[in-house]
Amino acid sequence: MEKYLVIFIFVGAVLALLFAVIMAKRVLSFDEGTEKMKKISRSIRSGANAYLKRQYTIVAAFFAGMFVILCVMAAFGLLTWFVPFAFVTGGFFSGLSGFVGMKIATFANDRTANACRTGLNKGLRVAFSAGSVMGFTVVGLGLLDISIWFTLLKYVFNQDAAGITSAMLTFGMGASSMALFARVGGGIFTKAADVGADLVGKVEAGIPEDDPRNPAVIADNVGDNVGDVAGMGADLYESYVGSVISCSALGVAAFNSQGMGFQAMAIPMIMAALGIVCSIIGTFFVRTGEKAEQKLLLKALSRGTNFSAILIAVAAFPLIWFILGSSYYPLYFAVLAGLVAGVLIGKSTEYFTSDSYKPTKKLAEKSETGSATIIIGGLGLGMLSTALPIVIIGIAVLIAFFVPSWLTQGADINSTQLGLYGIALAAVGMLSTLGITLATDAYGPVADNAGGIAEMSGLEPEVRERTDALDSLGNTTAATGKGFAIGSAALTALALIASYIDKIHGMDNTVTYDSFSVMNPLVLIGLFIGACLPFVFAALTMEAVGRAAQSVVIEVRSQFKKIKGLMEGKADPDYAKCVDMCSRSSLKEMILPTIIAIVVPIVVGLILGFYGVVGMLAGATASGFLLAIFMSNSGGAWDNAKKYIEAGHHGGKGSDQHKAAVVGDTVGDPFKDTSGPSINILIKLLSMVSIVFAALVVNFHLFG
Amino acid sequence: MEKYLVIFIFVGAVLALLFAVIMAKRVLSFDEGTEKMKKISRSIRSGANAYLKRQYTIVAAFFAGMFVILCVMAAFGLLTWFVPFAFVTGGFFSGLSGFVGMKIATFANDRTANACRTGLNKGLRVAFSAGSVMGFTVVGLGLLDISIWFTLLKYVFNQDAAGITSAMLTFGMGASSMALFARVGGGIFTKAADVGADLVGKVEAGIPEDDPRNPAVIADNVGDNVGDVAGMGADLYESYVGSVISCSALGVAAFNSQGMGFQAMAIPMIMAALGIVCSIIGTFFVRTGEKAEQKLLLKALSRGTNFSAILIAVAAFPLIWFILGSSYYPLYFAVLAGLVAGVLIGKSTEYFTSDSYKPTKKLAEKSETGSATIIIGGLGLGMLSTALPIVIIGIAVLIAFFVPSWLTQGADINSTQLGLYGIALAAVGMLSTLGITLATDAYGPVADNAGGIAEMSGLEPEVRERTDALDSLGNTTAATGKGFAIGSAALTALALIASYIDKIHGMDNTVTYDSFSVMNPLVLIGLFIGACLPFVFAALTMEAVGRAAQSVVIEVRSQFKKIKGLMEGKADPDYAKCVDMCSRSSLKEMILPTIIAIVVPIVVGLILGFYGVVGMLAGATASGFLLAIFMSNSGGAWDNAKKYIEAGHHGGKGSDQHKAAVVGDTVGDPFKDTSGPSINILIKLLSMVSIVFAALVVNFHLFG
Repeated sequence: MEKYLVIFIFVGAVLALLFAVIMAKRVLSFDEGTEKMKKISRSIRSGANAYLKRQYTIVAAFFAGMFVILCVMAAFGLLTWFVPFAFVTGGFFSGLSGFVGMKIATFANDRTANACRTGLNKGLRVAFSAGSVMGFTVVGLGLLDISIWFTLLKYVFNQDAAGITSAMLTFGMGASSMALFARVGGGIFTKAADVGADLVGKVEAGIPEDDPRNPAVIADNVGDNVGDVAGMGADLYESYVGSVISCSALGVAAFNSQGMGFQAMAIPMIMAALGIVCSIIGTFFVRTGEKAEQKLLLKALSRGTNFSAILIAVAAFPLIWFILGSSYYPLYFAVLAGLVAGVLIGKSTEYFTSDSYKPTKKLAEKSETGSATIIIGGLGLGMLSTALPIVIIGIAVLIAFFVPSWLTQGADINSTQLGLYGIALAAVGMLSTLGITLATDAYGPVADNAGGIAEMSGLEPEVRERTDALDSLGNTTAATGKGFAIGSAALTALALIASYIDKIHGMDNTVTYDSFSVMNPLVLIGLFIGACLPFVFAALTMEAVGRAAQSVVIEVRSQFKKIKGLMEGKADPDYAKCVDMCSRSSLKEMILPTIIAIVVPIVVGLILGFYGVVGMLAGATASGFLLAIFMSNSGGAWDNAKKYIEAGHHGGKGSDQHKAAVVGDTVGDPFKDTSGPSINILIKLLSMVSIVFAALVVNFHLFG
Repeated sequence: MEKYLVIFIFVGAVLALLFAVIMAKRVLSFDEGTEKMKKISRSIRSGANAYLKRQYTIVAAFFAGMFVILCVMAAFGLLTWFVPFAFVTGGFFSGLSGFVGMKIATFANDRTANACRTGLNKGLRVAFSAGSVMGFTVVGLGLLDISIWFTLLKYVFNQDAAGITSAMLTFGMGASSMALFARVGGGIFTKAADVGADLVGKVEAGIPEDDPRNPAVIADNVGDNVGDVAGMGADLYESYVGSVISCSALGVAAFNSQGMGFQAMAIPMIMAALGIVCSIIGTFFVRTGEKAEQKLLLKALSRGTNFSAILIAVAAFPLIWFILGSSYYPLYFAVLAGLVAGVLIGKSTEYFTSDSYKPTKKLAEKSETGSATIIIGGLGLGMLSTALPIVIIGIAVLIAFFVPSWLTQGADINSTQLGLYGIALAAVGMLSTLGITLATDAYGPVADNAGGIAEMSGLEPEVRERTDALDSLGNTTAATGKGFAIGSAALTALALIASYIDKIHGMDNTVTYDSFSVMNPLVLIGLFIGACLPFVFAALTMEAVGRAAQSVVIEVRSQFKKIKGLMEGKADPDYAKCVDMCSRSSLKEMILPTIIAIVVPIVVGLILGFYGVVGMLAGATASGFLLAIFMSNSGGAWDNAKKYIEAGHHGGKGSDQHKAAVVGDTVGDPFKDTSGPSINILIKLLSMVSIVFAALVVNFHLFG
């Protein structure tokens, strides 16, 4: 059976990549539009490419350094020799996912704008196809890399199950490191350009958004591509791969003694492959008649994702039954719990951030008494919105952990290990249909950019209206996407903590899952430090955005002053200069936060030992989950409250209320697009670093 | 020896109360000033009294209800019969502390303003004397109640050490419940009035702060008294009593097997008594020459607190040596660690929030690009400022836990229990000189009010300048005070978690400190829920301030419209109406957050069992500590950035930068004066409720 399973995984990966290629061809088959549109699109594309090239150069230097460090550790016997190579490939493919997604997005921007000249539905098709390229590239590359490493380790190097998962977790660390660079760097770039362009353009000079006279306008659009697209691609590649690998590792730990280590390891991979098939089928349901309204479009998108989710929910049952045998079928409920939890967290996000519901409407109302009250209201809303996801994740964990062991009573398996495998399976269940959920998520920035191009190339107002409709639809799907990203991050992080303890147990078998009581002061201090890390990380990324934006402000102001005839539209601004400013400052600023995420777990381990590390990981997961939801939802609600006012409520565009809401939105920008999403990666990277450096910490530590 | 120790504690308490009476007489011996000042002061006093009466009526109903519930539980054998009575007395005395402090503050306000007509130093003496009344009333009442309950339980009812500490922990729960009501209710009142008065008065009508034409101006001053004074009094009574009681409980647990339970229990009480003596001595060092400048005044205050701290640091060593014998003297290092940690956290707060240092100066600079950037900057600053206190507390816990057991190796005592007792002693060490630190803290609101009275009664501008100088001095000492409050809350909460586990151990001796591994899913889910609670709590209190402020805004606007001649100073506004509005809304809003703090631990226990409860307590302590520091420091920095601009930097008063800074300050108001300080109480109340309802949870729970 073994080889068939491996082939099945491989086939799933190739299918996804093929589908991505077909979708890419489809996107490219559309017309680019007018010469002006082409020219603008080219500027955006070249700016984005230039940035990515510089980013990847810096990241490559980091990876080279880490490679040397890991090789030295391997030479001292603290790691196997697979580790350095796995680390580098993880980083490479994570970066590649972001690159491909961004490439196609920059080709789809003007095509979407042009398609919107014909109609809303055609625009959706182009943008959604571009999103699909990204979605299926991420899952295809992810699964391909997993299956290649797996084949190499198992059939070429003859590693046992534990050896395989150990090397593959390092692969995950590479992916997470790359993802953090991409998210933080891209997130700073996009928000610095956005905030900078708005502050001088909209507020000081009084010209509309995306006005071609604004020198930062191209940088703003480049930012959408390098942050919201390339950053998201690398990010979700990391989530996808991380959840599969950590689940495999726990499967081996739980089932090896039963002689079923291989099967348990394969299940998450096969579920991922099956998820790809379900996602591809789902995309065919994203269709509407030519004259569709916005509401019907949302329904079309939801139909696709819902159908895929139902398909995988049905298919997972026979899968688990078939591979693990009838005794362990209850693990299916763990998968189901994860799937449902992901959907529910998405719904909760939607409730708190969409202007169709009370919270955001009430928030918009607070603009009546000025910016201070809308800020207080948004912060309160975000903090309050953490409660529901916590309860949802709590219930999902309870089900995933306890139900399998209750229903398999009598089976000769450690119930804690079975339960932890269940938690990891819940994360995989949540992400199994990532292909299509990411497609519906990634199309948003494409639509956003299309709007920018429509504005800059002076297309008819109804084109901009259509791209705006697509964009605001994208906000809703992005909310759902965030639910999956945050929820899976928490579950994967828990699975990784368990893997860490397994690894320590392998070196010191007196250490078990029960060894980490919160009343052990080392665990407790670790918990405090871990809980603090997301706060510090969020602070650093927010302040980085502030500093970078300030440099853009200064540049834009000076161009307005120096370039004669700019305001009259007689002279062109120096777009490239702003792109360069953003690149330079975001690349400089992305380094410190990432280094902290890598260095702190090692330092904590060297001082507080592995007790401190486990405490730190638990603390970081809990506080990171909360902070990520808080920041994402506050930011989303401010954004939509502003849009709600712009739609004519509470005084509408240009009123004092609108100005107050713009302040809220500006504060929310780094919240939701820089700090919030980076925290998801942070909490996993902390665990992966801890796992890779476990042997070092076990051998050298001050306390414990 | 026993009886002498008890007498010593009793004497300490009486000394403190006597000193408070002397200070009160001294305050009252000063002149009240002009008729106008007297009249204004009377209005403030009667408003504050009226509010407190209504608040205490509501709280009394709550206590009556809880009393019945606790009696029912006692009737079912789930509690001893001491519990309901201890609960009620704790609440009573906590409320009394707030009441006395507020009473004297309302008498000292106009006297301070009047004294400032003569000079800065005389003003300081009046305000500081009033602060001393509060400080020594809190510690005196606290220690008196502890010693009375102790005497009753031990000598009248012949309870053993465990029985005594158990009843006294309930006493703590009563104090914490009262404190939470006082802090939340008072905090909402003061900020609703403040924000409401500013939004309409300063921003819309363009009249200066504290202008008598503003209908909310009296409510604003009443708010300072009921929130910053009465709320703080109840709060710190709770902190003081909580730290002593929880330390006593752990002392019994650790030393009972050695036959030294009584001694270990007495140590924190005796240290508190000793701290009172040291504090009284310290107050005599708060003196300067008649012509002192502001800098010298700060030195005078610091001299007093520093001298007291050094005294207790010296005296604690022979105390421990004498009572516990030469083997256990290393517990002294725990006390020292706590004392030093408190000072260092205060210094860290000062660094991040005082405009003498870089962070706040840089924050003020961000006003140049508008309110959004100053908000982002302040949030970042607050989040970043959590790192240092976490490290400080971490080191203090390491020392307090490990040093005693390292140095007493060979002694026949459980090292974990010894270490936990050490952590609790660190908290007591931190709070031992509360008498004087609270005096320097509580004088701030008195000076603030004096400024208001000076403004309203049209005194010479130099009087207002002097009260402003006193007020800004108060901001610095308040920062130090906050360090002690937050730090001791974290340590006390940890001690209470240990007490909780001891209690569970008493009912089920398979449960030990080692039973609560973070990989137990019940502990883990509890951890997530606990970490979420401070977020939800902060959100609720912030939104309550928003709603209450909105009602004040509407009232003030309508008075400006309806009352003819108000703006010309020909007619008086209806001050009482605004006071009434604030009272009503703050009393309504204080109930939900407090109920949540009491109900959630019980519900979590009934579902997730005591494993879930311990996880919840650990999570709430970590995230509450972080959130409290974040919110306090962001708020403090915004406040001082505004003051820095008002002092003439970045455009000065009335500039656009100043307006941006005012937005920051308004956001910071509920941060630092409502949500932040309440979280300190919350994390302890959660533990105390858990302890009181432990028997219920052990008997009935769904999981575990």
